[in-house]
Amino acid sequence: MRPGFARWLNSTNDVTRRFLAAGRIRGLINIAGGLPAPQTYPAAELAEIARQVIADHPQETLGYGPIDGLPELRAAVAARFSRNGLEIAPENVLITTSGMHGLDLLGKVLLEPGGLIAGHYPTYLGAIDAWRPHHPTYRTLLLDDPAFDAAAGLAGARFGYVVPNFSNPTGRLVDLVTRRDLAAAAVATDTWLIEDDPYGTLQYDGEPLPRVIELAGTADGPVAYLGTLSKQIAPGLRIGWIIGARDLIDALTMAKQCTDMCTSGVTQRIALAAIEGGLIERLQPAIVALYRERRDALCAALAEHLAAWFEWEVPVGGMFVWAVARDPGLDTDRLFAAGLEAGVCVAPSSVFDPAGSYRRALRLNFTLNPPDRLAEGVRRLASVLRKMEVAA
Amino acid sequence: MRPGFARWLNSTNDVTRRFLAAGRIRGLINIAGGLPAPQTYPAAELAEIARQVIADHPQETLGYGPIDGLPELRAAVAARFSRNGLEIAPENVLITTSGMHGLDLLGKVLLEPGGLIAGHYPTYLGAIDAWRPHHPTYRTLLLDDPAFDAAAGLAGARFGYVVPNFSNPTGRLVDLVTRRDLAAAAVATDTWLIEDDPYGTLQYDGEPLPRVIELAGTADGPVAYLGTLSKQIAPGLRIGWIIGARDLIDALTMAKQCTDMCTSGVTQRIALAAIEGGLIERLQPAIVALYRERRDALCAALAEHLAAWFEWEVPVGGMFVWAVARDPGLDTDRLFAAGLEAGVCVAPSSVFDPAGSYRRALRLNFTLNPPDRLAEGVRRLASVLRKMEVAA
Repeated sequence: MRPGFARWLNSTNDVTRRFLAAGRIRGLINIAGGLPAPQTYPAAELAEIARQVIADHPQETLGYGPIDGLPELRAAVAARFSRNGLEIAPENVLITTSGMHGLDLLGKVLLEPGGLIAGHYPTYLGAIDAWRPHHPTYRTLLLDDPAFDAAAGLAGARFGYVVPNFSNPTGRLVDLVTRRDLAAAAVATDTWLIEDDPYGTLQYDGEPLPRVIELAGTADGPVAYLGTLSKQIAPGLRIGWIIGARDLIDALTMAKQCTDMCTSGVTQRIALAAIEGGLIERLQPAIVALYRERRDALCAALAEHLAAWFEWEVPVGGMFVWAVARDPGLDTDRLFAAGLEAGVCVAPSSVFDPAGSYRRALRLNFTLNPPDRLAEGVRRLASVLRKMEVAA
Repeated sequence: MRPGFARWLNSTNDVTRRFLAAGRIRGLINIAGGLPAPQTYPAAELAEIARQVIADHPQETLGYGPIDGLPELRAAVAARFSRNGLEIAPENVLITTSGMHGLDLLGKVLLEPGGLIAGHYPTYLGAIDAWRPHHPTYRTLLLDDPAFDAAAGLAGARFGYVVPNFSNPTGRLVDLVTRRDLAAAAVATDTWLIEDDPYGTLQYDGEPLPRVIELAGTADGPVAYLGTLSKQIAPGLRIGWIIGARDLIDALTMAKQCTDMCTSGVTQRIALAAIEGGLIERLQPAIVALYRERRDALCAALAEHLAAWFEWEVPVGGMFVWAVARDPGLDTDRLFAAGLEAGVCVAPSSVFDPAGSYRRALRLNFTLNPPDRLAEGVRRLASVLRKMEVAA
């Protein structure tokens, strides 16, 4: 008999695949995934950019490129994020084949089997997935707890992982004091701290807060910053970056060599032209306006139909509302399954818990669907909840 | 003090990076890498295809796609490789972000730490790299040895790995009898056998031999087949595929979810349009003619300048000539370093040996450079060898 597959595969969840498969169920309303609204993709501009960069740079777009990324794109990212006193050199930047790929590389470089991760709790599902092959253990960072002690949280971990801007799944903004504490604790304990920021440009109220890496004051310290174009331009480019200390970037480059050799020159050159041409800045106001309207529509529908069962905060940014059940006995894994039957797909909290046991909350996405579909999705959820009550 | 990086990084070699860095040394002749000739890239056609696929399929190219690949591309690959009695369903196909990425995914799914790989010897450097994080052990498969016993070679390994068409680094074609033995042994011992075939379309003499997976007779058995567009169209697309049993494809899909979520829809759609439009078939005659001429030029230069020190076979396909020193004491690691000083970069055999200890051979690439540069590179090598003899 053939030997079995690697043991870590037994620890995976299939919810992400069920999200994606759900897209093919006729009539289903998907408020589970973290998908952008397709109409925000600047297709006409990117089509022309793609033609032009291949015609103008055939060897760079179509050949093998440097493992660590196109030099001009590394320089553009370094320049873009050098602000608030932070100085970033191109050598502090690695181009990755998506933000997810950055998480995979960080796991390869920073983890040994069973290594301890100090993770923002609840945690981005993709990060949990990326690190599964290393069988990590987790210490939870409860950043919203007034008693949160950043140094105690980070000390002794292989690395810390936080999503300060509109955290996935909770949508919360980590406040300035906690950001300062995290930066200081990373430096004081000399612990790698990964600041993952896919949603930073999606802010609907208030002013942006400084990044943790800016508060640490150096790109050559223990704080590393992850970004992606997926929410700013289009996920189909699969372009992300890691900003961090040169020795970390060197180690990650070696891991990238061992993973995909180099990122596509086609998509890197498209990304560079889009950044240099100011595409992100031109797109952002319309994206923010569209998503703000949808956030408000989802929250209004929740207030009308779901307040009896759930409570939530209105997020100031990002893509998600985190709804926590009033009744600690309500099982959102069951609600997820029953919702699918009733034509609505939501993300149950268990998938954002490395232990898989927290079943009291839901993550609801508001970016993909227009207001009427969001409202209909919430009505379907309410109808499922009423039936679950009757059955109970 | 910050914890060190993962231990496997200590086992890496920096030769691949030195190859790539060598590209930037002024006047250096690079006959080390496995790089296509840039003039073979169909830039004008791909530029127009890129524009059109983004304009025609904005959501598919720019949004998140299915983890396992664009359904139409999976179907096109399945159809393309269904021949000689082999039937492949789209469910037997996973689209990967380059062939290298396929090797990374196979390691994630098939290896536990320290797992045994039965590897074609000498072995593709990229495969050794891809599997380093798992600290594998190796059993060498000496496919050219008349006493080679395929069943004994494969039995008990987590998987076997072979490059039957114009093996990297040796350029050798594995003969039909050995292919049959490998297929039969994989089935008899029920051991995964990875048939990696990046060079299959680059054949300069004779007729193609059947693939090992064709001789095994089924895509749902233990033989899995890897392919890539890098040598057929352009490496910058970063598009590859794995054909294999459905349970293997399912496990690899889970690993891909944990690695890069999905491959770029832009490059997948370009690949699909290129395949459906017959681009590979249109390009192939010119590529084969160009590379055949260059192979002959390299071999002629070797015969003129290097025959005193090395012997080699003229390869019938692929990208490489494998030159073995007549003197077992000649150290090609030293020759590599001295060559760099003299303006020529070659690949020393140590990097193709998982143990890193075989230092008697060189891999010489003939696809990147025109005949006069190949000849000049060989002359520089000869000059280095003369100096090494005087110094010895």
